Amino acid sequence: MNDFKETVTGDELVYHGHILDVHHQTVELPNGQAAYRDIVKHHGAVAILALLDENHAFFVRQWRAPLEHETVEIPAGKIDPNETDPLAVAKRELNEEIGYAANSWRLLSRFYSSPGFATEKMHLYLATDLQELPHKRALDPDEFLEVKVLTLKQIQSFLRQSDFIDAKTLLAVKYWEQLQHDEVSHEA
Amino acid sequence: MNDFKETVTGDELVYHGHILDVHHQTVELPNGQAAYRDIVKHHGAVAILALLDENHAFFVRQWRAPLEHETVEIPAGKIDPNETDPLAVAKRELNEEIGYAANSWRLLSRFYSSPGFATEKMHLYLATDLQELPHKRALDPDEFLEVKVLTLKQIQSFLRQSDFIDAKTLLAVKYWEQLQHDEVSHEA
Repeated sequence: MNDFKETVTGDELVYHGHILDVHHQTVELPNGQAAYRDIVKHHGAVAILALLDENHAFFVRQWRAPLEHETVEIPAGKIDPNETDPLAVAKRELNEEIGYAANSWRLLSRFYSSPGFATEKMHLYLATDLQELPHKRALDPDEFLEVKVLTLKQIQSFLRQSDFIDAKTLLAVKYWEQLQHDEVSHEA
Repeated sequence: MNDFKETVTGDELVYHGHILDVHHQTVELPNGQAAYRDIVKHHGAVAILALLDENHAFFVRQWRAPLEHETVEIPAGKIDPNETDPLAVAKRELNEEIGYAANSWRLLSRFYSSPGFATEKMHLYLATDLQELPHKRALDPDEFLEVKVLTLKQIQSFLRQSDFIDAKTLLAVKYWEQLQHDEVSHEA
């Protein structure tokens, strides 16, 4: 089933950045012709649907340079090049951004954010049975954010109105809606 | 509410590619310190949940260079720099990739794929009341794909098993699940 495979015939690192590298590749297409591919290499990220209870979750308000605007997103963070365990990264980010630990963790999904040009893989977790930590880890020095607790109705209303929503937060809210629906079904 | 605003103090185009540009910015943080931001500028994209009927949708199997692997995704395509109407792009992509037109179009959501480093905004549409076209537009010369019609159960099973799933397809399937659930509720 690899009949669409493209063979890489040239690969040039055209930009080495702090959180990403950019490669310009020459590939051989299935029909033998040549084509070019711009690829953004990124070490991946984690995101957390952290439920205080079935109707309250944590969100963070922060500035996003690419959008030149603030966003409200679920807690998330990059996986560093030396890190191999996404769950450990998720635990650290929940500590750093929110100041909480969770006794229960579940992987909801793993997905590529933008498979047409980027290698970034997102690991989306559900964290429940939360505990506030007496000593929170410090944020990165270039990170500024406000922690928000919102109900499902409040974030649904925000997602309907805002022009600055992101894929992982939208997806997390869909999972939250299903969790609530499943609970109602169980009770019925 | 712009208290986290970062002011751009320097902006260098470090890579000008075919489908994206990369900028290295220097910003002033809210506390007056300087920081660096790598930003991938992308013109945005469209994706289409195209339902043949309530239980069958179109997907495309294709090679994705960043993942070095095949994927199964909903039909999608880039917005070209000269294009201003995402719906027109969605109509063109449904024609090019699938060979269909749709009489009914609805915007399901607009979201940023990866707001930490990329400007890409995705416009996700629901297309129904589909009609096969007698004359399909040609694919781009570097594009190879196989059109697949899958049931909701088939794509759900694929998403559970595959390591190569993407955000927009996962989200589209969540919308599809909700549409089916709403219909069942209406009938009940």
